[in-house]
Amino acid sequence: MVVVGAGFAGIRLMGRLRRAPVEVLLLDRNNYHLFQPLLYQVAGAYLGTGDIAKPVRGIIRRYANARFQMTEVRGLDLSGRALLTAEGRVGYDRLVLAVGGRTSFHGLEGVERHGFALKSLADGVAIRNHILTCFEEAALENDPELRRELLTFVVGGGGSAGVEMAGALGELVPLVVAWDYPEFPVSEVCIVLAEATDRLLPGLPEDLALTAARILQRKGVEVRLGCRVEDYDGAQLKLRGLSPMPARTLIWTAGIEPVELARSLGLPAGPGGRIRVTPTLQLPEHPEVYVAGHAAYWELNGRPGPMVAPAAVQMADLVARNILRELGGKPAESFVYKNPGALATISRNAAVARVGGMKFKGLSAWIRWLVVHLLRLVGFRNRLIVLINWAWEYFFLERANRYILR
Amino acid sequence: MVVVGAGFAGIRLMGRLRRAPVEVLLLDRNNYHLFQPLLYQVAGAYLGTGDIAKPVRGIIRRYANARFQMTEVRGLDLSGRALLTAEGRVGYDRLVLAVGGRTSFHGLEGVERHGFALKSLADGVAIRNHILTCFEEAALENDPELRRELLTFVVGGGGSAGVEMAGALGELVPLVVAWDYPEFPVSEVCIVLAEATDRLLPGLPEDLALTAARILQRKGVEVRLGCRVEDYDGAQLKLRGLSPMPARTLIWTAGIEPVELARSLGLPAGPGGRIRVTPTLQLPEHPEVYVAGHAAYWELNGRPGPMVAPAAVQMADLVARNILRELGGKPAESFVYKNPGALATISRNAAVARVGGMKFKGLSAWIRWLVVHLLRLVGFRNRLIVLINWAWEYFFLERANRYILR
Repeated sequence: MVVVGAGFAGIRLMGRLRRAPVEVLLLDRNNYHLFQPLLYQVAGAYLGTGDIAKPVRGIIRRYANARFQMTEVRGLDLSGRALLTAEGRVGYDRLVLAVGGRTSFHGLEGVERHGFALKSLADGVAIRNHILTCFEEAALENDPELRRELLTFVVGGGGSAGVEMAGALGELVPLVVAWDYPEFPVSEVCIVLAEATDRLLPGLPEDLALTAARILQRKGVEVRLGCRVEDYDGAQLKLRGLSPMPARTLIWTAGIEPVELARSLGLPAGPGGRIRVTPTLQLPEHPEVYVAGHAAYWELNGRPGPMVAPAAVQMADLVARNILRELGGKPAESFVYKNPGALATISRNAAVARVGGMKFKGLSAWIRWLVVHLLRLVGFRNRLIVLINWAWEYFFLERANRYILR
Repeated sequence: MVVVGAGFAGIRLMGRLRRAPVEVLLLDRNNYHLFQPLLYQVAGAYLGTGDIAKPVRGIIRRYANARFQMTEVRGLDLSGRALLTAEGRVGYDRLVLAVGGRTSFHGLEGVERHGFALKSLADGVAIRNHILTCFEEAALENDPELRRELLTFVVGGGGSAGVEMAGALGELVPLVVAWDYPEFPVSEVCIVLAEATDRLLPGLPEDLALTAARILQRKGVEVRLGCRVEDYDGAQLKLRGLSPMPARTLIWTAGIEPVELARSLGLPAGPGGRIRVTPTLQLPEHPEVYVAGHAAYWELNGRPGPMVAPAAVQMADLVARNILRELGGKPAESFVYKNPGALATISRNAAVARVGGMKFKGLSAWIRWLVVHLLRLVGFRNRLIVLINWAWEYFFLERANRYILR
């Protein structure tokens, strides 16, 4: 069988099937698995790229039934049971599409062209380079208006990625900028979190969202609710009903959609371009093709299910189970999402979390967040290095990775 | 005063002058200091980029008399005592040019175009990406000739950088390739160290050079002495007197020259484009301008002095001392190079070294090399992370940083 995509779903599936009586070929255009939840820490110069990117071959080399090919999938021949890749046809008896998501700009062309996505490793490095370059340019800029533009950083979208990114930027100011840039007062740095709806963190209860907003404000982040981005040209941000805001930086976290490939395969599309599947996560006419992760369309309480990592992992678990059941001659089971709770970190010692019926705020939520993310990071060495980076930054208030690599 | 260049000489000078009664402005086009001696470990996927790049502002923020500007110096107005930068004129009363070196391709255009230099952080990342991509492509290649080309890695130049790079590649094969790529036998991987003269490591005694060659050969590296590269087109390497060798990779370490800037400033040039200075490291007609590091021309026993880091650091020490003497009304001292010995590491537990009259080989030299490099790495955190990476690789025989970042 063939698995496309080495994200959370694809890697989970490889692990679940490692002792199954099937040969599994994993395809991805990158040779690494990206621990996407910590990408904002690369963007914020906490972590190095290697800390959150784990080579796929290093993960699967312990699995006797697994192989890997770094290749780009371009098409699918459903009736011929073959993938079309840059290197030719790759046949399959069973296929799992776990191709993942990308940033959705909701048709805002200026935002797509001039803003930054926060999705790939290259995005993280590009944001880090850009932010540090803005600081360096501001240190040389005498025009107060241009300095203001250089020192205004806007995060679009108040979900957990946006909250975490804004929180990381809020920390950068007292921890790094105040020390490193005597050329301008830190009060000139302006960090804005722009959210179109009337609340942050839709996955969390309202009181925790309010707590998050309060903590962000205490960190110096301007939280603007009901603030819709309409256009951006790299220097001026157009917000609905407001005068344009000068800002050299816009980090866009306000949307996710399946990757282009999910649409271009010509499979039946559901809302948002996600692929329609049966409750057992199979293509209706082609039960040999499974879809897992962000590319699969599913519903929760009559609405599109969230495109989040826990859902992707749970889908991979189900696909693995259904493949094993199929091999054992048993009928497939349907996907039931178990909400594992939600966590969002805001700064060095503040987070908000809901687990089961319990809510956590502040330091206890932050410690929980830290432990959860460390445990989920693939590979012991990565965990150790990330822990050292965090400890370093926590105790010495310094960001080690703040170099501009062009 | 103004210092141009945040390499070994520039950073050393900032430290030596940190309590001097002078204001010092440091300029560099990058915002980080690069620990160049370990760059081959980034290229070989041992270390991450952040492990060997330390932000300049993080280094000098403890120095009350120091400032930094990230800018590109483009020219020099000697009589007007000003540097011309991308952002305008920067006046100085005293100037230290510590602009450093770059790879010399000795006029071999094909090598310059298709080969890799090993000098900047971007070079290190480019080589890592390229090597790993060659392995991935070889895993998909059925044509044995093309696979041979993809799996042949040539290092040009048998100095310490070339020996270390070839040794690192030699280690990659049993430690990573053998585990990660079941698609081809490791015997297909071919690593060649091509040196034009009849010996390796010109800075070390001949018997140690022979030891190094022997260890390299034991690690599977083909050491070719008297082997002169004449041309390269990215696929075929032309060697003098030999038939062309298919090789997708050529890493060029066989030469160093001052950066372009050193030539373009219009200062009196010595052999190799280095700037002619007095024995006190000042410009003959302009004693307010000092030159330190690779850009300064000096002689050792009647021959051009080596362009090595210890010489750069010793020059910075002398320039700092001479500036302090000048402030105290004392005459300047002349530069006298003290050879600190030489070290070259070949693999996980083998190195060759000469310190004073003593020679070290094998494990003892390797431990010495490790300690020396760790102590010299700027910043405690970098040391710790590098140590963990090394320990990880040593005990678990895995390279953590082998991801391809485009």
